[in-house]
Amino acid sequence: MKLLRLGEPGRERPVLLAPDGRHLDLAGVAGDLDRAFWLDRGPDRVRAAHEAGALPEIPAEEAAGLRVGAAVARPGKVVCIGLNYRDHAEETGAPIPPRPVVFMKDPYTVVGPHDDILIPRGSVKTDWEVELAVVIGKRARYLDSDAEALDVIGGFAVSNDVSEREFQLERSGQWDLGKSCETFNPLGPWLVTADEVPDCQNLGLRLAVNGERRQDGTTKNMIFPVAEIVRYLSRHMVLEPGDVVNTGTPAGVALGIEGNPYLRPGDIVELAIDGLGTQRSKLVRA
Amino acid sequence: MKLLRLGEPGRERPVLLAPDGRHLDLAGVAGDLDRAFWLDRGPDRVRAAHEAGALPEIPAEEAAGLRVGAAVARPGKVVCIGLNYRDHAEETGAPIPPRPVVFMKDPYTVVGPHDDILIPRGSVKTDWEVELAVVIGKRARYLDSDAEALDVIGGFAVSNDVSEREFQLERSGQWDLGKSCETFNPLGPWLVTADEVPDCQNLGLRLAVNGERRQDGTTKNMIFPVAEIVRYLSRHMVLEPGDVVNTGTPAGVALGIEGNPYLRPGDIVELAIDGLGTQRSKLVRA
Repeated sequence: MKLLRLGEPGRERPVLLAPDGRHLDLAGVAGDLDRAFWLDRGPDRVRAAHEAGALPEIPAEEAAGLRVGAAVARPGKVVCIGLNYRDHAEETGAPIPPRPVVFMKDPYTVVGPHDDILIPRGSVKTDWEVELAVVIGKRARYLDSDAEALDVIGGFAVSNDVSEREFQLERSGQWDLGKSCETFNPLGPWLVTADEVPDCQNLGLRLAVNGERRQDGTTKNMIFPVAEIVRYLSRHMVLEPGDVVNTGTPAGVALGIEGNPYLRPGDIVELAIDGLGTQRSKLVRA
Repeated sequence: MKLLRLGEPGRERPVLLAPDGRHLDLAGVAGDLDRAFWLDRGPDRVRAAHEAGALPEIPAEEAAGLRVGAAVARPGKVVCIGLNYRDHAEETGAPIPPRPVVFMKDPYTVVGPHDDILIPRGSVKTDWEVELAVVIGKRARYLDSDAEALDVIGGFAVSNDVSEREFQLERSGQWDLGKSCETFNPLGPWLVTADEVPDCQNLGLRLAVNGERRQDGTTKNMIFPVAEIVRYLSRHMVLEPGDVVNTGTPAGVALGIEGNPYLRPGDIVELAIDGLGTQRSKLVRA
């Protein structure tokens, strides 16, 4: 299923994008796409209501006029994996990590897939990162196997792990400061449930700036695949339903490109992942 | 005012600890000590209700039998400042940082001040850190002055920034992994509103393990004082009401002591900060 959230910030309502392209209102079935949604077996209830024909349609012209919110309501946490594609590690001059590099973003950075991205005041190194986001569907601690890890995944989404490289790399050795600026995690358009993604290690990821292709990778090239990431994380922290895990970016970020073409006001960033939809955001000054 | 939360995990109710020692039920005035509490002018409403004699008393014997929850309901984020006391930086062998070192903890790590602390499976380097926690009371972005920074502080609490040093320092260069284990942020017992803390840079902090004093510092010795931390953070991320900022720990952690006496099952950790109350937690295996 493709789930999304339509409406103004803080007032989004959950919606099912049906296979026939209709937008179906989930207000009677789910409060929001949040922790409670997963705890209350939200996907099962949505599926049952859809099969029973119980979901009211939002007229196409009305749906088209609504803002698309983040695919997940404010997560309990956003965990990120750094340097998880060999070509990206190489372009940044970093060694291939022997274990997942784990850092965090402020969960308030999560915004809609077409919302403006704010360039922080004083920033000259705002950069992009297309990533496969994993949305946790079940509470997880101390998982033993990859099969257990895949079982706790609720769905997937397109994520832009926007990064300010000076804040990230030059202020201290810790990255979170450059990853947590306002609007730095466009997420969506859709939360695609895991059953619709038969192989999360075979998805193309693409990103363009002002129409010029900058990233063109595949999740085949992850150093640590999704199941291993989730299992590893679960052995160090508790993963809760609605948490988001950004799984790393392939080569082609401004930090790694000749001339370092960091983002500037007015730039347009477009992202896509196979089967997960597209994002399009404009850069503006904070 | 001293605010606290009494009840089983996930079912705590907000309570005012009155100057005369009585526990007064805030159920009619506040839902929880969370983001909405601050957005809805919670402290003003509590004060008015208390002055009007409108708050029902919880009998002393009943209050004494209730678990004390975290002083803040699950925060939107937990930001931490590393190496913020000169003596602690020196004991860990780190240089004095020229700018605040900023990292994050999983907000789900926040637990009550007397809850058990879980030693992660496979851990041999679980460590303690007594810290002054700042609770944000107003939304803050791009603050210019220390006065503005102090104005957005809602209150203060005792915080134990529990840390697994192998996960923090030996798995990758990023610290969050060793800071985000289950139960790793006991917080409370009280949220003391800022008006009751006339000088947050003159508070003694103490920590003992099994009755042996390990940390004995004062917030006078912070490298970056509270106002500067809040101002600095606000220029890199948005601080939201209910967010927690752990402001660093003085010398005396196991990592810095001869013999590295890391925590073991059965150990008792006790923390205190002048005017903010005490914590007492037992270490158990996860």
